Amino acid sequence: MSDAAIHPAVLLAQDLIRCPSVTPAEGGALTLLASHLAAAGFSVERVAFSAPGTPDVDNLYARYGTGAPLLVFAGHTDVVPTGDIARWRHDPFAGEIVDGRLYGRGACDMKGGVAAMVTAATDFIAAHPSFGGSIAFLLTGDEEGPAVNGTVKLLEWAKARGEQFSHCILGEPTNPASLGDMIKIGRRGSLTGRLTVTGRQGHVGYPHLALNPLPTLLRALEALTGPALDDGTAHFDPSNLEVTTVDVGNPATNLIPGEAKAVFNVRFNDRWTLDSLKAEIEGRLARARREGDAEVSLTFDYSNAVAFLTNPGPFVDIVSAAVEAVTGRRPALSTTGGTSDARFIQACCPVVEFGPVGGTMHQVDEFVAVDDLASLTAIYRGALERYFGP
Amino acid sequence: MSDAAIHPAVLLAQDLIRCPSVTPAEGGALTLLASHLAAAGFSVERVAFSAPGTPDVDNLYARYGTGAPLLVFAGHTDVVPTGDIARWRHDPFAGEIVDGRLYGRGACDMKGGVAAMVTAATDFIAAHPSFGGSIAFLLTGDEEGPAVNGTVKLLEWAKARGEQFSHCILGEPTNPASLGDMIKIGRRGSLTGRLTVTGRQGHVGYPHLALNPLPTLLRALEALTGPALDDGTAHFDPSNLEVTTVDVGNPATNLIPGEAKAVFNVRFNDRWTLDSLKAEIEGRLARARREGDAEVSLTFDYSNAVAFLTNPGPFVDIVSAAVEAVTGRRPALSTTGGTSDARFIQACCPVVEFGPVGGTMHQVDEFVAVDDLASLTAIYRGALERYFGP
Ligand SMILES: [Zn+2]
Ligand SMILES: [Zn+2]
Repeated sequence: MSDAAIHPAVLLAQDLIRCPSVTPAEGGALTLLASHLAAAGFSVERVAFSAPGTPDVDNLYARYGTGAPLLVFAGHTDVVPTGDIARWRHDPFAGEIVDGRLYGRGACDMKGGVAAMVTAATDFIAAHPSFGGSIAFLLTGDEEGPAVNGTVKLLEWAKARGEQFSHCILGEPTNPASLGDMIKIGRRGSLTGRLTVTGRQGHVGYPHLALNPLPTLLRALEALTGPALDDGTAHFDPSNLEVTTVDVGNPATNLIPGEAKAVFNVRFNDRWTLDSLKAEIEGRLARARREGDAEVSLTFDYSNAVAFLTNPGPFVDIVSAAVEAVTGRRPALSTTGGTSDARFIQACCPVVEFGPVGGTMHQVDEFVAVDDLASLTAIYRGALERYFGP
Repeated sequence: MSDAAIHPAVLLAQDLIRCPSVTPAEGGALTLLASHLAAAGFSVERVAFSAPGTPDVDNLYARYGTGAPLLVFAGHTDVVPTGDIARWRHDPFAGEIVDGRLYGRGACDMKGGVAAMVTAATDFIAAHPSFGGSIAFLLTGDEEGPAVNGTVKLLEWAKARGEQFSHCILGEPTNPASLGDMIKIGRRGSLTGRLTVTGRQGHVGYPHLALNPLPTLLRALEALTGPALDDGTAHFDPSNLEVTTVDVGNPATNLIPGEAKAVFNVRFNDRWTLDSLKAEIEGRLARARREGDAEVSLTFDYSNAVAFLTNPGPFVDIVSAAVEAVTGRRPALSTTGGTSDARFIQACCPVVEFGPVGGTMHQVDEFVAVDDLASLTAIYRGALERYFGP
């Protein structure tokens, strides 16, 4: 592709990368998108939210059309910090294109996806100004941060003003290696638990005067990690519990410690709710308990990360077909990986995720392939054609 | 007991407490004992040892007589620090007597025992100046410290000059509650092991890309703590392994850690040597190993703390009879508790330990009962009479 023919989604992505929008800074990114969307006929609202102890965050909601169905494109313009800038070979906020790659913080997560969505939607509207339905953009500046003043509040705000979302495409990077690999149709939930076991400190020479908390803790962790939580479900891998740390901090080899702590995290599938999973964990600990054990206390970190699934069906088929038409490959329907804002959106409408190749997200020299941005724009456009088509 | 009739062992213990001999300071304690022993006819040698990285330490060896058998009294004049002096109600270096208790750092561990030994021996010699055998004192100033320049080197020094010990009484506090409770006829050994398990760090959402070291470590610790090492032996409790610490130090709940560490300490009986115990531990870890486990590395801290036993027999009977004659009770023959310098002495001759009630050793307001010091002197004297008697 010659310089003279740079794809409009690449130009927009480049402009977005040049906005230094490290969470919670807006950096001009939403303002830039607002002008693009307004020029295409969207009615655009800037919505700022604040909460005690967290930074104020800018968000954007834009809608074209008043009819149903309402297809929502969702995303974020904030980016994670650059880390040690000396390790970057390409200025993270310059948007350099070298050897077919557009470099910069946010290139794949997810300014590239946002640029492709906006370009696809404005192109579609230019071609079908009276397509009958509606297209909306739900863009937050707080996905990489505390996620308190972003998508959750923007969804509440939209609901309060009567917006009725039909379906949503979230443009997070979903492809492990090449464009067309994978659509995410759900996500596992996440729950963190903390165990504190309290015994009685003492000298190793007099174990009967002490109560070592570690055997109790080891048995508790054995009970949690032992039998699998499940064998997986139709669209999910088995739920998985990882012990992430065990800490005592006793430097004295002749001392039986008085307290031991452990933390574990569960990534769980749609076999479980947060409540049923907590009950299973509590039950396992209760059954592992033996007479004379040290005292075990269990707490859970606050979690809103439920498992969810958008069942394969007409909407998933539309996105899959759009991917296949451009890439020549049928994408896998996956529920793997970490959590995303889709866990909030799924409470409003069915949501799938498809975006760039994510190999360099959050890393130095993050990039997106220029050709992929053009293809991704074509895929989103194809999804719009199929969704609103006859 | 009126002030006018303070027992000579109490007076000597008081004088010793007034010598500030916190390890490695000599504080005048050995000099004081040297003059007492020399006055009674002992030939006294002051022996200082040094080693790189450790403080120089004063020690004392004294002998009365040239014939066999040679009964050795062993002990130490150094004391542990006072800790926060504001917590003491009695000046730790004043040797106050209040309500029948002699207070001060070292009162029971073990200036009281040393004072009783020296008093008993000098009394015995005064009564039987030509008893035929020999009595020696082996006194170190480095029992509470690194124990490098104390008993071990003094024993080597004595061996090199041809001293042939027949039996030894070590005057450490051995009685849990009241004088006459317990003679120690052996000690368990001590061995410390360290496990480092190395896996591969990763995100909890992608467990197949990571290798959590904790399941491997938990199974290793289960194997070590699971089946008992033994059921005890004729004179020993079962050997006991305590996990003293487990540490990962991973603050991120979404991160699978790359490394986990644990430390354990074994107090073991005469069923084991250091080598056979290490082989058992290595064997358990090898049998616990499963395909796909993280890498386990095991190291042992240097240990010279073997288990040893002075079998009940004529010598133990002499000490037991002396205790019973004074206290009216037959002492238990025990091998419980921590390690002591007896583990070094046992390589030279049979050794038993008997001394004051140890309830306040290493604590604030350490004390020894004045009546106990008089009784303890009578017990040591009785042992001498029986040992050298017709
Ligand atoms: Zn993202
Ligand atoms: Zn001691």
